[in-house]
Amino acid sequence: MKHNSEKNPPGRVILCMNGGSSSFKFALYRMDEGSEHLIAEGMLDRIGLKSGRLRIANAGGDVLRQEECFAQGHRDAVLISLAAFETLRLPVPDAVGHRLVHGGPDHINPVVIDPGIIASLKKLIPFAPLHLPGEIMGIEAAAQRYPGVPQVACFDTGFHRRMPELAQRFPLARNLWNEGVRRYGFHGISYEYIVEKLGAEKSGRMIIAHLGNGASMAAVRDGMPLDTTMGFSPTGGFMMSSRSGDLDPGVLLYLMQEKGYDAPMIERLVNHEAGLLGVSGISPDMKTLLDKRDAEPDAGLAVDMFCYHLRKQIGALAAVLGGVDTLVFTGGIGERGAPVRSCVCAGLEYLGVRLDEGMNARHADTISASDSACSVRIVPAKEDLVIARHTSRLILQKAES
Amino acid sequence: MKHNSEKNPPGRVILCMNGGSSSFKFALYRMDEGSEHLIAEGMLDRIGLKSGRLRIANAGGDVLRQEECFAQGHRDAVLISLAAFETLRLPVPDAVGHRLVHGGPDHINPVVIDPGIIASLKKLIPFAPLHLPGEIMGIEAAAQRYPGVPQVACFDTGFHRRMPELAQRFPLARNLWNEGVRRYGFHGISYEYIVEKLGAEKSGRMIIAHLGNGASMAAVRDGMPLDTTMGFSPTGGFMMSSRSGDLDPGVLLYLMQEKGYDAPMIERLVNHEAGLLGVSGISPDMKTLLDKRDAEPDAGLAVDMFCYHLRKQIGALAAVLGGVDTLVFTGGIGERGAPVRSCVCAGLEYLGVRLDEGMNARHADTISASDSACSVRIVPAKEDLVIARHTSRLILQKAES
Repeated sequence: MKHNSEKNPPGRVILCMNGGSSSFKFALYRMDEGSEHLIAEGMLDRIGLKSGRLRIANAGGDVLRQEECFAQGHRDAVLISLAAFETLRLPVPDAVGHRLVHGGPDHINPVVIDPGIIASLKKLIPFAPLHLPGEIMGIEAAAQRYPGVPQVACFDTGFHRRMPELAQRFPLARNLWNEGVRRYGFHGISYEYIVEKLGAEKSGRMIIAHLGNGASMAAVRDGMPLDTTMGFSPTGGFMMSSRSGDLDPGVLLYLMQEKGYDAPMIERLVNHEAGLLGVSGISPDMKTLLDKRDAEPDAGLAVDMFCYHLRKQIGALAAVLGGVDTLVFTGGIGERGAPVRSCVCAGLEYLGVRLDEGMNARHADTISASDSACSVRIVPAKEDLVIARHTSRLILQKAES
Repeated sequence: MKHNSEKNPPGRVILCMNGGSSSFKFALYRMDEGSEHLIAEGMLDRIGLKSGRLRIANAGGDVLRQEECFAQGHRDAVLISLAAFETLRLPVPDAVGHRLVHGGPDHINPVVIDPGIIASLKKLIPFAPLHLPGEIMGIEAAAQRYPGVPQVACFDTGFHRRMPELAQRFPLARNLWNEGVRRYGFHGISYEYIVEKLGAEKSGRMIIAHLGNGASMAAVRDGMPLDTTMGFSPTGGFMMSSRSGDLDPGVLLYLMQEKGYDAPMIERLVNHEAGLLGVSGISPDMKTLLDKRDAEPDAGLAVDMFCYHLRKQIGALAAVLGGVDTLVFTGGIGERGAPVRSCVCAGLEYLGVRLDEGMNARHADTISASDSACSVRIVPAKEDLVIARHTSRLILQKAES
């Protein structure tokens, strides 16, 4: 393990990497016993496009660097970003932690990356062909830039692996289960953060709604995952920004048999042309639709459908839990979409949910009324922090062993 | 309109026809003001197989005819059955009523069949390629056997057409909605029967679970349909005997891209190899699985998953209704599956559901405990009677006009 130079204060510097399908997000933390300090964070987006942009800010939100840049691929994106770190004289990381979208049936807990892990991740590419290749390139680019610096993989599917088999199975034949066609669930790192933040026992029967461009929900009882809305891929579950969620397979069969759709056309339809974008015909972005919904009926319909699907999924997960004590909103829409939270909760009075609309409008930590049987919370998503914690802990264990 | 001969008592004789994918069911009713009298009913199953069987019984359940027979197709099945009617000296129908699985966006109410209706049904075949062709053949065979006898079409999708657009839309682009890719819902004739039987207002916020080989649920408020679990095709919704219900589209993309599945393979997987059969690997039949579940863990898992999915869907529809006053079980599993009803309702206490296990075991009309906030009912499905009523009413209107 690399020793901190005298210039740096004590503690381990952890670089957290989070590769999306066309973006690369990162955060640099200094982790020490009892202290977690964000140094800088940012992203490079529009990978593959000339209009790409790199943006790095410090913990206070001051922009350290913002520039147009063209990254041909994920490897490029990582190398450009890390070169900018050096120019900005940001500390060299002691370890790098990665968010991996898919761990398959076998990867549950965070793990120090070695060639065997990389090989096993490459075998999982068919399960997540849009995300895993870029994430693996990110691991390889970081190894090239920081030779010898340990790397750790955290799996977004890991949290859900303790769900009962009942919830992990599709109603399909066992041979498909055996070859890995399972309900994995995603956003597990986000759910793990919230369970730890709120306390497993204190939260009781908890439903967590992680609402970003990708959106899912989890049912958690006393910290134990029972079910989640997403299944085999991040396309599943309920309506999202541009993804369909679960669908009647008859729709896809109709499109294949009558309209000549092939796999790439279906892939585009369900991942890029559906959800808020598909219904509104205007935008996949919730804020844009909220701004336009008074003037554009289809924007209003898209917002209403999103809230309606959310409400139904909360109902379904409440049936799994036998009622709900805590309802948590997180992710971009969950944290900032006051009208969405309000619309979702209207109609959930039968579950003991009653919002304080004033607190909701102010995005307070607790937005339920004082007499609400169900506590409704907003918790900002901090997946990077979970990755930094696991990475810090694992490299310390490795150094001590 | 044909006048009743002196031999027949007054009233209109209505033949109800219900063509499945490989079976033909029928019932003969005598309908009069204030009286509805079943004369005979039966089915011809295993159409296309040498092991086909015709069975006709009277209203008391006495078998009038039972024989092996080979019907090459639906037309054959109808003609063989109607020839047996004649041999048995059953009365010639004054009208024939048909259950049509799909009415598309335009067919809502029952309608007297004319060449224009048949042409419009043929255009809908791409929406229901497994069922509509046989049903149309049934109409044509009945016209051949009973020339001049009026026929009426009742649509299994009709009941749901008053659902809000919110519930009828998939989270897909409007051009797909415009060309008919909508959430139609099925089993509408069954739901209509139950709403009429129990009384719209008296049932309040009602969830009806129609559980046969095909299974769906509907949320109905004061008689008005709000939502249903099935969507575009009878494959959608939740786990059934051998159908998958809604799926993560990522599963199908994986099977297409990595395993070379084409449309016929997907069709077989989601319609014939999934559900109870897929999970158990033993049988699509609930009774068989209930009998075997103590000895065969996979039979137990299939039953548990079915009940679990049902419970989640009840939860989702309760969120649509804002709570539930009446829960109704109908269809083969709904009427006779006491352990299924018991398993589903255990865990719904938070909705005010409390079963009287003794009444449940006896398949009583009302199976909730006297202190249950939600009334839980068993109502035997009588889709044929609804068809007979509509047919009788429409031909009377036609005769009077």
